[in-house]
Amino acid sequence: MSRYPEALRRLIESFMVLPGIGRKTAERFAFSLLQGKTEAANELASAITELRKHIMVCQECGQFSERPLCSICSDAKRNKSELCVVADGRDIFPLEQTGLYHGRYFVLGGLINPIEGIHATQLKIKELQIKLKTNGVKELILALNANLEGDATGLYLIKLLKPLGLKITRLARGLPTGSRLEYADEATLQSAFVNRKEV
Amino acid sequence: MSRYPEALRRLIESFMVLPGIGRKTAERFAFSLLQGKTEAANELASAITELRKHIMVCQECGQFSERPLCSICSDAKRNKSELCVVADGRDIFPLEQTGLYHGRYFVLGGLINPIEGIHATQLKIKELQIKLKTNGVKELILALNANLEGDATGLYLIKLLKPLGLKITRLARGLPTGSRLEYADEATLQSAFVNRKEV
Repeated sequence: MSRYPEALRRLIESFMVLPGIGRKTAERFAFSLLQGKTEAANELASAITELRKHIMVCQECGQFSERPLCSICSDAKRNKSELCVVADGRDIFPLEQTGLYHGRYFVLGGLINPIEGIHATQLKIKELQIKLKTNGVKELILALNANLEGDATGLYLIKLLKPLGLKITRLARGLPTGSRLEYADEATLQSAFVNRKEV
Repeated sequence: MSRYPEALRRLIESFMVLPGIGRKTAERFAFSLLQGKTEAANELASAITELRKHIMVCQECGQFSERPLCSICSDAKRNKSELCVVADGRDIFPLEQTGLYHGRYFVLGGLINPIEGIHATQLKIKELQIKLKTNGVKELILALNANLEGDATGLYLIKLLKPLGLKITRLARGLPTGSRLEYADEATLQSAFVNRKEV
C-alpha cells in the first residue's frame, strides 16, 4: 500500500498543529501548495519564519508589536486616562477596527479558568494595579469575552480594583447587530431585555 | 487606528492563499503560531520549503513522488494489466487506502470542464492512449469524481477508448456506507436503486 511521500507527510502533519485543522484539511492545504504557484508556498514559509523574528510584546501594554513600544502606546494622541483591559493581544485588533476608542490598552494574558488551571495569579493583574496607580487612569473598560471565564475575571477585577475609586465599565450585552430575535439564545435575550434602552 | 504589525499582516495574507481560508481563520492560524511553540512554527516553515525540493511527478503515472518513478510504478508486484485512471494525483491516496487495488494508476491531470476552460486537449489523454497501446492493459478503471465533470470526462474516454477493445469499468454509484436513507439526495438514491444488487 502506498503512503504519502515523506516530504508531503511531514507538511501535512505540520499543518495539523494549526487550530481546528484535521488531517483532511491539512491534506488539502499541502496539495494546494504542491499544485499552486511556487512563490505562494515560498512566501508562506518565509512569512512564518520572519514572524517570530520581528514580533515582540509591547513593554507597556503587552500587545504584539514590531518595536519595544507598540504603535498605540507610543502614540501621544491616545488618551492616557482611559485603559481598556483585554484578555489577549489579538482582542485589540477588532476593538481598534470600531474606530470608537482612543484610549490605551492592557493585555491581561488570559482569563481566570480554574478548570484549565488558570488562576488570577497567572494573569498580569499586579502589573495592571501598578499601572492604574501610577498612570492617572480615570476609566477602566473591561473588554473581556462575554462568557463564564470573561465574567469571572471581570468580577474578580471589579472587586479588587473598586477601592481605587476609578470608574469601571464593561462592554454592553445585548442582541448582536444584524441578528434575528428568533435565533437569539435565552441568555442574550435576557441581557437585551434587562439592559433595554429608552428611545 | 492600529493595524497588525507588518510581519503578522504578511503571514495572515499568506495563509489566505490556502483553499477555503478567509481572513478570520488566517488570523487564528497566525496567532496560534505566534503564541505556540517556536519549534512548531519552524517545522511548518521548513516543511513547506522542503516540499517543492523533494516532490516531483512520476514519469510513468504522473503521481507525486520523491523519485522519478513513484513507489507504485517501481513496484514489480503491481499488476500491469489493470490501469486505474484518476483526475488528480491526490485521488490515488484514498484509493490505495482501501487496500483493494493492486494494479497501476494514471493521472489525467484534471477533468473536462468547459466552464472553467478545461478541454480534453489539456488532459494527458494522448499519453494515456500510448500507454494503453504499449503496456498490455486489459482493464481500464475510471475512478473519476461522481459529478458532472467526472461523468463528462468518463463518457469522453469511453467513446475514445472503446475501439481499443479493452474492458472499461467505472466505480460503483450508490449509497455511501454509513449514510441514512432520509439524508440521501435524489440522484444518489436513483443510482442506488438502478444499480441495486441481488442478494
